[in-house]
Amino acid sequence: MWRFECDYTEGAHPEIMKRLLETNEEQTPGYGEDFYCGQARKKIQDLCGRADADVHFLVGGTQTNATVIRAALRPHQGVLSAESGHINVHETGAIEASGHKVLALPGEYGKLSARQIQEACQAHYTDSSQEHIVQPGMVYLSHPTEIGTLYSLAELQEIRKVCQEWGLWLFLDGARLGYGMAASGSDISFRELAELCDVFYIGGTKVGALFGEAVVIMASALKKDFRYMIKQQGGMLAKGRLLGIQFDTLFTDDLYLKISRHAVQMAEQIRDGFQKLGYSFFCESQTNQQFLILSPAQIEALSEKYSFSIWEEVDQEHIAVRFCTSWATKEEAVEELLADAAAIKTQA
Amino acid sequence: MWRFECDYTEGAHPEIMKRLLETNEEQTPGYGEDFYCGQARKKIQDLCGRADADVHFLVGGTQTNATVIRAALRPHQGVLSAESGHINVHETGAIEASGHKVLALPGEYGKLSARQIQEACQAHYTDSSQEHIVQPGMVYLSHPTEIGTLYSLAELQEIRKVCQEWGLWLFLDGARLGYGMAASGSDISFRELAELCDVFYIGGTKVGALFGEAVVIMASALKKDFRYMIKQQGGMLAKGRLLGIQFDTLFTDDLYLKISRHAVQMAEQIRDGFQKLGYSFFCESQTNQQFLILSPAQIEALSEKYSFSIWEEVDQEHIAVRFCTSWATKEEAVEELLADAAAIKTQA
Amino acid sequence: MWRFECDYTEGAHPEIMKRLLETNEEQTPGYGEDFYCGQARKKIQDLCGRADADVHFLVGGTQTNATVIRAALRPHQGVLSAESGHINVHETGAIEASGHKVLALPGEYGKLSARQIQEACQAHYTDSSQEHIVQPGMVYLSHPTEIGTLYSLAELQEIRKVCQEWGLWLFLDGARLGYGMAASGSDISFRELAELCDVFYIGGTKVGALFGEAVVIMASALKKDFRYMIKQQGGMLAKGRLLGIQFDTLFTDDLYLKISRHAVQMAEQIRDGFQKLGYSFFCESQTNQQFLILSPAQIEALSEKYSFSIWEEVDQEHIAVRFCTSWATKEEAVEELLADAAAIKTQA
Amino acid sequence: MWRFECDYTEGAHPEIMKRLLETNEEQTPGYGEDFYCGQARKKIQDLCGRADADVHFLVGGTQTNATVIRAALRPHQGVLSAESGHINVHETGAIEASGHKVLALPGEYGKLSARQIQEACQAHYTDSSQEHIVQPGMVYLSHPTEIGTLYSLAELQEIRKVCQEWGLWLFLDGARLGYGMAASGSDISFRELAELCDVFYIGGTKVGALFGEAVVIMASALKKDFRYMIKQQGGMLAKGRLLGIQFDTLFTDDLYLKISRHAVQMAEQIRDGFQKLGYSFFCESQTNQQFLILSPAQIEALSEKYSFSIWEEVDQEHIAVRFCTSWATKEEAVEELLADAAAIKTQA
Repeated sequence: MWRFECDYTEGAHPEIMKRLLETNEEQTPGYGEDFYCGQARKKIQDLCGRADADVHFLVGGTQTNATVIRAALRPHQGVLSAESGHINVHETGAIEASGHKVLALPGEYGKLSARQIQEACQAHYTDSSQEHIVQPGMVYLSHPTEIGTLYSLAELQEIRKVCQEWGLWLFLDGARLGYGMAASGSDISFRELAELCDVFYIGGTKVGALFGEAVVIMASALKKDFRYMIKQQGGMLAKGRLLGIQFDTLFTDDLYLKISRHAVQMAEQIRDGFQKLGYSFFCESQTNQQFLILSPAQIEALSEKYSFSIWEEVDQEHIAVRFCTSWATKEEAVEELLADAAAIKTQA
Repeated sequence: MWRFECDYTEGAHPEIMKRLLETNEEQTPGYGEDFYCGQARKKIQDLCGRADADVHFLVGGTQTNATVIRAALRPHQGVLSAESGHINVHETGAIEASGHKVLALPGEYGKLSARQIQEACQAHYTDSSQEHIVQPGMVYLSHPTEIGTLYSLAELQEIRKVCQEWGLWLFLDGARLGYGMAASGSDISFRELAELCDVFYIGGTKVGALFGEAVVIMASALKKDFRYMIKQQGGMLAKGRLLGIQFDTLFTDDLYLKISRHAVQMAEQIRDGFQKLGYSFFCESQTNQQFLILSPAQIEALSEKYSFSIWEEVDQEHIAVRFCTSWATKEEAVEELLADAAAIKTQA
Repeated sequence: MWRFECDYTEGAHPEIMKRLLETNEEQTPGYGEDFYCGQARKKIQDLCGRADADVHFLVGGTQTNATVIRAALRPHQGVLSAESGHINVHETGAIEASGHKVLALPGEYGKLSARQIQEACQAHYTDSSQEHIVQPGMVYLSHPTEIGTLYSLAELQEIRKVCQEWGLWLFLDGARLGYGMAASGSDISFRELAELCDVFYIGGTKVGALFGEAVVIMASALKKDFRYMIKQQGGMLAKGRLLGIQFDTLFTDDLYLKISRHAVQMAEQIRDGFQKLGYSFFCESQTNQQFLILSPAQIEALSEKYSFSIWEEVDQEHIAVRFCTSWATKEEAVEELLADAAAIKTQA
Repeated sequence: MWRFECDYTEGAHPEIMKRLLETNEEQTPGYGEDFYCGQARKKIQDLCGRADADVHFLVGGTQTNATVIRAALRPHQGVLSAESGHINVHETGAIEASGHKVLALPGEYGKLSARQIQEACQAHYTDSSQEHIVQPGMVYLSHPTEIGTLYSLAELQEIRKVCQEWGLWLFLDGARLGYGMAASGSDISFRELAELCDVFYIGGTKVGALFGEAVVIMASALKKDFRYMIKQQGGMLAKGRLLGIQFDTLFTDDLYLKISRHAVQMAEQIRDGFQKLGYSFFCESQTNQQFLILSPAQIEALSEKYSFSIWEEVDQEHIAVRFCTSWATKEEAVEELLADAAAIKTQA
């Protein structure tokens, strides 16, 4: 069976495993204060072109989102997010558990617009009983979004402007950041993120690492005491070097983007292949997630050899499904998939 | 100026003030363990026909909602509410501050339906990654709702059935309960509430008291240690007798319903009067809140002598406004209002 | 029976009841934005000699402590308090419920010293794994303390200095502030508090009001958005004028201090009377609480006519008890108590 | 330099690294629902002799403690812990951040006694204002404790009895459990823990794994929905199999206890060696942590080649320090340490 259900079905990129093995017997101090974390930090600062960036390594995405948001907001503030945002629908209320309302806005293709944010703030601050309503304190974006769409540089700049106008922190969740940067037509690099965001994170779990997310903090006010917050939220890994070694490896010889590009190419093959076969798509995506519309019979047939995610019912005879590729996707798997897709094209 | 902006612009019903004055020098134990609280409790139990009901007195509505919800839910659970529910939009995120997501559903005229609740639970429990999603743990209704609409007994019974099927607590916010019960056509009394709800509260602040809400707990599991929860949330009034005396008075000689009926009659006069004058309504209401559609010019004209709430923009030339009556509304004020409304009818 | 168990056994001072009655039918806006709140605010600012003080009115002490502390601290910070501090032992964990550890220090006679605070901060910031430990963010004092002792001006000034050195907020709980100011030898007035504290509150519940505490915020950073915090914690009274009227009355014609002085005089009569009779004291107190040591037989005898609090066991044959006076204590009650105390002096 | 500062300075046991490498390219479902987690779960159930035990794998200790405690307690409850308990002093208030007070009791050699727990509960439930005080809801033990001491089976049985009497959950933190079980004279095995505790965890991070703690839940009421809690606290590892593979390996061929015994032997060599040289000890320990008393000069001398933890000042000329061994400690390092210790014995 080939798994396309998500982008974390394998272990880590072999280069990472090699480095973990090589360093396994070394003795280092704990909690991210070792040599490897320092080296990884430096490489990320260099990529961002900002020696003043604070870089912290956490284990997973939900933990990272909760830690960042809790560290940034005051108790009466909430975080603006697209309705489909991970923090709104797939973290078992971790943000609310830390005391903050997710202020969900409809979103278009998983994205928020500067205009929406502007309107939400205007509505809040012109309400005569504003103190009875959660105050917007932060904007949460994911890039790529949950459905693989991307912000353009222009869009991000506009959002940044609105954030500054209303005093909102801008936080970008980059759990799949590599796949976004590797997408054709994407015009956002680490330098732009460092310039536009107050804080963002670079996903490792879905992009080659065993686990790990690198939080990059640009806003001075958010830097203070962030390690206390990591520890309190249970995110400070005792053997912190495991994160340092992984990110150090990912940012050596451009590995992060190289393997991201592979995933995107595999996704493009899937997209182009299905398209040529005449299949319909639930939405367009330039990244490593492809959303197809299949019939129940097609789903049943493909499920024998492939795992993939049921996304949502389109109508009684059509269901949207998601195929994910990753740094680890084998070309052979994609070819088999397309061959089988050709064979079952006519199954209603 | 006459105030119609809300139902808490005056102090308390004169009978309550009289009782507070008469008992002012008495010495009683604190924290709701005095004679008057006991007596008020007994009267409410009698009204509900249930000697086993636990009755607690709190100061205000937001406090009450937060205390009840926090006491009932486990950390990973959320509360289903209409989007317009008070807990969702007008409590500065007090529920989220206590760790729980408000699971907002569209609602129709401010109401949830049994079917919606059913669908939300079904969606949750058939999701293969349900553990990544907040679990519905409670249904929150308000009766009357934020826009003055009412549940019928049949609707409540259906909702109850769904709650039992899925293991949800049923909580009814009765901040304006008197005005609901006094509405023409309402078929829900205290006995029905005690039978159908796991917990509900009887609003005093908006119905004749200086302040105060009486929480009635029917479900055994929710009764345990509730006083600890009140204290922790800062809701245990030192001179608890102030609440006991007020509710004792409200439930002596049927005062609560008598004054509620007055408010509803005043609201009906406003409704019928404006209707006769040809004004349009934003929505229908049988209770003490009436939602009218006015032009900006009409709003400006009426604002000289009357205060009322701007509800929402209908279109560029029409705005929905809310007029509230209460136990304290003077007939004279309503008559003046209608006279002035007649005079400005033609202002666009 | 005469009640000496606490200082909130009666309603309110007659002057307050009179004002509440006189204004009962007036219509005012809600949530503390009425004329009376404005007037009370002004009087408190004048007493403090600081027009820039922010003044907010809340209902009760636990609510006030939780709201202030939560508004001031970041998530990883805790609040230094004497072990006997109200927030540490008598608020059902309200501070922890808002996410913050109470960092309890032994205290001497219920008081913290500048030196202790200094040492606690030094210990924290010289610990190499400080990020694994809750960071001190605030000092919580009560004045008078839980056992009726008082800070001197010099002590407060020293504490202030240490707070500034380590970046700690200084918060003073004045639930019984009047009784402290009225104590003989006390050298702290509103002006000193406004100068030395970042935030403090003036207790009404125990000093003549039906209920109510006036929070005075001096530090600019703590002023921002405080009303959101009050609302979120369930402390924003709908009919806010009830608080305004009460504090306006308490600060008219020096009523607050006048009635406080009465309570202290009554306490002094109790102290001096018991002393003359040869009773022992658990600790010294200049304020309205007196702590005596009685035998079980004496306790039983006095309990027939008087209520008072059992404080703690001293040894198997001696128990410390607390007698509280208040603005409402009747001279007649004190005289009877002393007469009965004389009669039972010899009961072991 | 040789590191003795803690028991997590290296990576993982070579056998674990081997298994991680071998399985690296396999595709598995995420979030702990893979084959390896299943197999590890089964082995732990077998060791406990209880097929009904629920076993979950989390990443680190603070995360585990916070998740278990939050899942078990109601909002008004706190957790009894020794003052030196990890949750009380070394988790940046993670328990309070989840809303619960740590009810710290003095402890003797880091341990709580049944009697202390009994007295704390009695004090709570006989207090007439118990609702104003945090209710004890759970007992937190660590075994070994923070200073390497151990509970005997008889002590645990007594504690269990008190817990049952007062309705307290019994939770045992086994971050160093292997080192406890391998200690000479220890009479507690997995079977006893499963019988006596409501929930406990088996530490991996400090005992041979890269990271990971295995939570074993015995009490039915605590099993329900625990995965939601893990996810909400940010502890659900996407590639959950990493934990499964590690614990599967640790519980294959008794590896967990074998490597624990090595650590204890190394600690015993240190203990016996220093003892023979005439050094004093801060406290006795049978496990992998040894607490010595050194002079500042000795500390300086040893620090050139060894890292170890400064524990606390004993007096002006003596400081307690901690040497930790682990599964990875090299005999060569211990021998060098003892040789150097001999050389500097006379340095004051």
